[in-house]
Amino acid sequence: MQFTKGHGTGNDFVILPDPDGELPLTPATVAALCDRRRGVGADGVLRVIRAAKHPEGAAYAAEAEWFMDYWNADGSLAEMCGNGVRVFTRYLLSAGLAEPEEAGLPIATRSGVVRAVVGPAAVGRLVVADGEIAADLGAPRLYGDSTAVLPGLTLNGSVVDCGNPHLVCSLPTGVELSALDLTRAPGSDPAVFPAGVNVEFVTPGEPVAGADLHMLMRVYERGSAETLSCGSGAVAVAAAALRDANLTEGVVAVDVPGGRLTITLDGDSAWLAGPALLVAQGTTLP
Amino acid sequence: MQFTKGHGTGNDFVILPDPDGELPLTPATVAALCDRRRGVGADGVLRVIRAAKHPEGAAYAAEAEWFMDYWNADGSLAEMCGNGVRVFTRYLLSAGLAEPEEAGLPIATRSGVVRAVVGPAAVGRLVVADGEIAADLGAPRLYGDSTAVLPGLTLNGSVVDCGNPHLVCSLPTGVELSALDLTRAPGSDPAVFPAGVNVEFVTPGEPVAGADLHMLMRVYERGSAETLSCGSGAVAVAAAALRDANLTEGVVAVDVPGGRLTITLDGDSAWLAGPALLVAQGTTLP
Repeated sequence: MQFTKGHGTGNDFVILPDPDGELPLTPATVAALCDRRRGVGADGVLRVIRAAKHPEGAAYAAEAEWFMDYWNADGSLAEMCGNGVRVFTRYLLSAGLAEPEEAGLPIATRSGVVRAVVGPAAVGRLVVADGEIAADLGAPRLYGDSTAVLPGLTLNGSVVDCGNPHLVCSLPTGVELSALDLTRAPGSDPAVFPAGVNVEFVTPGEPVAGADLHMLMRVYERGSAETLSCGSGAVAVAAAALRDANLTEGVVAVDVPGGRLTITLDGDSAWLAGPALLVAQGTTLP
Repeated sequence: MQFTKGHGTGNDFVILPDPDGELPLTPATVAALCDRRRGVGADGVLRVIRAAKHPEGAAYAAEAEWFMDYWNADGSLAEMCGNGVRVFTRYLLSAGLAEPEEAGLPIATRSGVVRAVVGPAAVGRLVVADGEIAADLGAPRLYGDSTAVLPGLTLNGSVVDCGNPHLVCSLPTGVELSALDLTRAPGSDPAVFPAGVNVEFVTPGEPVAGADLHMLMRVYERGSAETLSCGSGAVAVAAAALRDANLTEGVVAVDVPGGRLTITLDGDSAWLAGPALLVAQGTTLP
């Protein structure tokens, strides 16, 4: 099987080119590929297939040529992955399967068509640097407050829905982001989050050119662990930070452990921008 | 850069073919290659170079054609790696760079020439199954006792020197191997282990055909974390188990989380046998 490996701010993927949908991809194959020690290793698989050739993509075929068939590392299917769309787009460009489009290259996903803008580019408030790709994940919704419990520390946080549930917790004065113990899942309120929640811990950063706000973030992903990056988590952090600053739109730089993401909230759009890199290509051995 | 990825019981390596020593390998390159999210990802790098072409291999060139230039994932050099020798040998065979030898294929390493026997094979007490490779790591030395401290649990253990320091702790009745909390390094006695220690936790397993003893093991590797496999740790466990059974030689099956290793202690030899697989090959992208 041919593959390419790529990542966006440390969120990494095995990319499988399969334009005509001929690969017999199964949960077991995906789990074996993503095994970090016995396989190629990644957070998930991005199968690159023509929308017309995939049962869940065919409805979008008039609008988007390519369908991002995203699988989690455990072999389960997922609807969307913000960093995944950005790396998927980098692959399409690198393989000569698509060209950048000014209004954004349309990518079909299980949760509809997502647009990706390839830097360097500027569209309205959105500015995408050279080497970066932005994907519009759609505006998040803000709800009330809830709490996250860490060893010896209970934090208040904002509930944010980005299609998946998030709890964005600002650190009180005197608590360092680097000192948090995220070796285990933070406790959360099962009445608010019956299926668990992704928890972001944030503290303000120094001013960054081109951004209205700058936040530093660590994240514990639901059902997983602390990760180097979480695209929807960064969008949730940006939405909460803008709301706290009494802004409805704006640009927020969010530093995750794997690098910097820039979120531009503008009307119904939430653009997630950052680096998207391909690091290796090869074939699996029988 | 061309690479192959392989593993032995979940201990994984990026293999770099460089017969004439032309690769400009640096600690930074190795660390980038081994980065599990931004690179290819592995526990270490095995550079495949002719002994005559490497400053530390030249002294062995009359005895061994190939030198295993082993680097840890952090870019530091290491003297030996038992699972590494097994995977290195698999690569040599697969690439047509060597043929199995009945007395063992000699591989030069920083700690001397190590012999590798390719299964199916039987040499004296050593039996190597088809698909497996055995490497002679040399007889370990047993010392006295010391203690390991886990949360809420202090365990007595045997001190074993396999070139690197080990502490083999048998679990008391009622304590399950799977229940141990190995999320953090076990505490050890700095007077006995001034540079830290690899700690193995063991419990007897059901009888296994062809083995005198069968042990189940988990390991916390010094300076690292709990790992799927540790070749020298399995040898230490076998030596302690044979001593406890009043045997000086014998065959011990050791189940690590990544699979089964079989250790044959016979005079001055400690053969570490188990599967050695190549899973992918490719090139890094600029």
